[in-house]
Order: sequence, then structure tokens, then C-alpha cells
Amino acid sequence: MESNKLNTLLNRRTIRKYSNKSIEKETLEQILQAGVRASNCGNMQIYSIIVTQEQSRKEQLCKLHFNQPMVKNAPVVITVCADVNRFHKFCEQRNAPKSYDNFLWLNVATIDATICTQAMANAAEELGIGICYIGTVNYQAKEIAELLNLPKGVVPVTTLTLGYPDENPPLTERLPLEAVVHYETYQDYSEERIEELYQEFEQLPQIKKYIEEAKQENLAQVFTNVRYKKQDAEYFSEKYMSFLKEQEMI
Amino acid sequence: MESNKLNTLLNRRTIRKYSNKSIEKETLEQILQAGVRASNCGNMQIYSIIVTQEQSRKEQLCKLHFNQPMVKNAPVVITVCADVNRFHKFCEQRNAPKSYDNFLWLNVATIDATICTQAMANAAEELGIGICYIGTVNYQAKEIAELLNLPKGVVPVTTLTLGYPDENPPLTERLPLEAVVHYETYQDYSEERIEELYQEFEQLPQIKKYIEEAKQENLAQVFTNVRYKKQDAEYFSEKYMSFLKEQEMI
Repeated sequence: MESNKLNTLLNRRTIRKYSNKSIEKETLEQILQAGVRASNCGNMQIYSIIVTQEQSRKEQLCKLHFNQPMVKNAPVVITVCADVNRFHKFCEQRNAPKSYDNFLWLNVATIDATICTQAMANAAEELGIGICYIGTVNYQAKEIAELLNLPKGVVPVTTLTLGYPDENPPLTERLPLEAVVHYETYQDYSEERIEELYQEFEQLPQIKKYIEEAKQENLAQVFTNVRYKKQDAEYFSEKYMSFLKEQEMI
Repeated sequence: MESNKLNTLLNRRTIRKYSNKSIEKETLEQILQAGVRASNCGNMQIYSIIVTQEQSRKEQLCKLHFNQPMVKNAPVVITVCADVNRFHKFCEQRNAPKSYDNFLWLNVATIDATICTQAMANAAEELGIGICYIGTVNYQAKEIAELLNLPKGVVPVTTLTLGYPDENPPLTERLPLEAVVHYETYQDYSEERIEELYQEFEQLPQIKKYIEEAKQENLAQVFTNVRYKKQDAEYFSEKYMSFLKEQEMI
């Protein structure tokens, strides 16, 4: 019975191909409500949700997301932002000091925006709508903010594409639960333990194919030499940090 | 029918009082699985989940969370961490460079840890278990990391208390959906718009009582003069930032 209740959560797949079926206004509003209903710090709701549905804007957004096709093909794209702008205006009009332009609140707003996003993701999936997180929002925050007209005090944190599925991919493998869960205190990993925990994962045929295609010796190198190079991460770290300053978030 | 599927998500309440009923091992593992099953960047799973169940450790943790009683009274406390330690070890053992010690990856790991947390929160609530986010984890990251034995490369991001409800609070008010949702582009708020959007909220009897108890003129001042003072936020920002450096996250 219990596993039945968690059916959606335990069997979800990220969906990257969407059918032509559009998401009805009422359904979309329910998804948005589920996001807003989730927990947030002090009930201040220091986030905003930007909904993109116009085809031309989805295409512009798609370019900014390094042309990932989900962004232009999904009927709905949602960009969730950390937003202290609204709250600061509320404070200013009530003779209360602007207090949220620092790293603590950026971090809290990032977490709250993400809680809201994931509640929407779960709601969508409960309704049979597929979702995909688009991580490039963190690389391209500045350009996306310009396209979406974000004022100072607002930065994009997550992007979600939503649409009815036009694919049925297999369940993605994860590390065994014991690799990421620690009871009571963190048990640091010995060399042997790392080997044990990653062994099965590395032996999967799809992972072996992935390594071969990337012309690397192993999965770790696919990440660090091909997909997520250190110099790129350092470049995007600086870019994001200076954008946060420009937006007066920190 | 659709609203029925979203019943839990749309009608959830944060639960701060828990009954004596413990959470069974199998149920807890299902909740953890739901967290792991949620989306994460590149399937690298750069997070860890620390489960606290021992009473003495919950009491120590409770002190670090400024004595919020939920932390010692809940049968299960979960601290979700951004974790590049495991992945770095995996990389080192495969002749791949350590690439994740920068702000971009801290941000991604923070987001992924939060996605995982919120999927667990939703799973718990589907099973009739109440949850409460404990935001003080961001203020006390350093002390909590010490208690939980977190090595370099690991920082706590979210804390969730879980237990069967022993209270049935009313649904918390939120701003109207139109206050946080923007279609196509961000519509910045005029003075009049802020007044409109916050009016109903500020007039709620429980909010009026809250303002009176805090001896402030309005809700904004309760936040900025009492609950979340600017100088405190600046102190905790610096504290968190220097802990992140200490942990070699940035």
C-alpha cells in the first residue's frame, strides 16, 4: 500500500521528449500552487516563478541554454528565481530596513526557490506530465535574466521544462542507497569502499558505451575531461559571482 | 480527479509536533529512495543524507539549532549535505582531476541537495508523516558539520524533521499566486501593486497578533527588526563563507 502511494516518486524518469498536447491553464495553475504550498523560510516567499509559453521566447531561451532542444520543444518552461526584490520593496514601503542583500539570504532564497521547483516537479509528475531540469540556468544566469527582464534583487536558480511524455525511457541507475546515506555520523570513504560503491554502476553497458563515445578511460574522466572541465567551472563561477554582485544579491 | 492526485501537495501543513509513533525502517528507506530518485546534475549525486535517530545526538543537534524542540522530539532528523568529497575521491582513484571545489559546483550541489530533500518531504507527506524544515542549518553549518563528522568537501544544506503528526494546524496563508508568478517576463512591482498584493495577508488576525506580540508597527518590521536582523545576516553570511573555504568547497 505504501509503495503504491510513492509510485510516482519512486518510478519517475526525466522526460526530454514531449508530445504536442499542451498543458491546460488550470492544470498549470495547480502545479504552480503546489510549488507555492511547499515550505519556505519565514513564509516570506523570496522567490519568483517565470512561466515561458510563447514559442519565440522559448526559442530565445533555448539558445541561452546552449540549444538544448527540450527548452524550445516543451509546451511550458519554468524559471524559478531567488527574489529579494519584492520583499525589499515591501520593507521599504513599511519603514523597515533592506536586510536581504547578503550571502545568507542568497543561500536561503536559492534553497527556497529549489524547494518550490521540486514541489512543482512532483505535482507535474503526479498529473502524468514529464519534467526535465535544465542545469545550464546556473551558467547563463545573466543572459537569462536579461531575456526575462529580471530586475536587481532577482536571479534565476532553476529551470524546468514540462510537457506530456513522448518517450518512455528506462529508470536511470543510481548509486546504491548506502553510498549516499549515513546513519548518525558521516562515515568517510576508504579507497576500497569507493571501488565497491561505484563498481556496479561503472559496469553498466550504457555507462561503458558512454565512456567509449567520449573516448575516455573511465566515467570520472568523462565528467572532468569532457562534460564539466575545471576551467569552465571556474569561468562560470566567476561569471555567476559577478552577476550576483551586479544584481545586488550579495 | 486531478486535484485529488495533488491532494497531499496542495493541502500540506508543516508539522512541528510529533506523536510517539516511530518511523519504521522500511518506511524511512522508501523516503530516502524517493530523494535519491529525484533529478540531480549529471547523475553524479553530489549530496549526502545524514539520518539522526539516536536521542542523545538529536539533543546535541537540537542545541545547535538554537533549541528548536522539533529537532529533539522528532523520531527522525535528516540533514542533507552538498558533498563533493565522495565524487572527488572517485575522481582521484581514476586519474581524473578534482574539479568541483568552486562556486558553480557549490551552487549546483546546494540545489541538488535541496531537490533530494524536497522529494523526501513529499514522500513523507504522502505516507502521512509530517515534516518541518529547520532553516538554522545554514546559520550553524560549521557546528553541525563537527557533530556529524563531515569531512572537507561536505557542508550541510537542509535539515528536515520527520514524524507522525500530533497536531493539525490550519493551512498557512500564502501571497496570491499572481504575486509570485510572472508570465513571459518579470513585471516589476509598483508601490500600488505591493500594497494590493500584501493587503489581505497583512490584515489576517494571526498576522496582526504576531505584529502586536513583536511590538512592531507592521509585518515587515517583525522580520527586519526582530526575526532576521541585517547585522545577524551579515554575521552568518561571513561565518558560512569562511566555513565553505575551510571545507574547501570554494
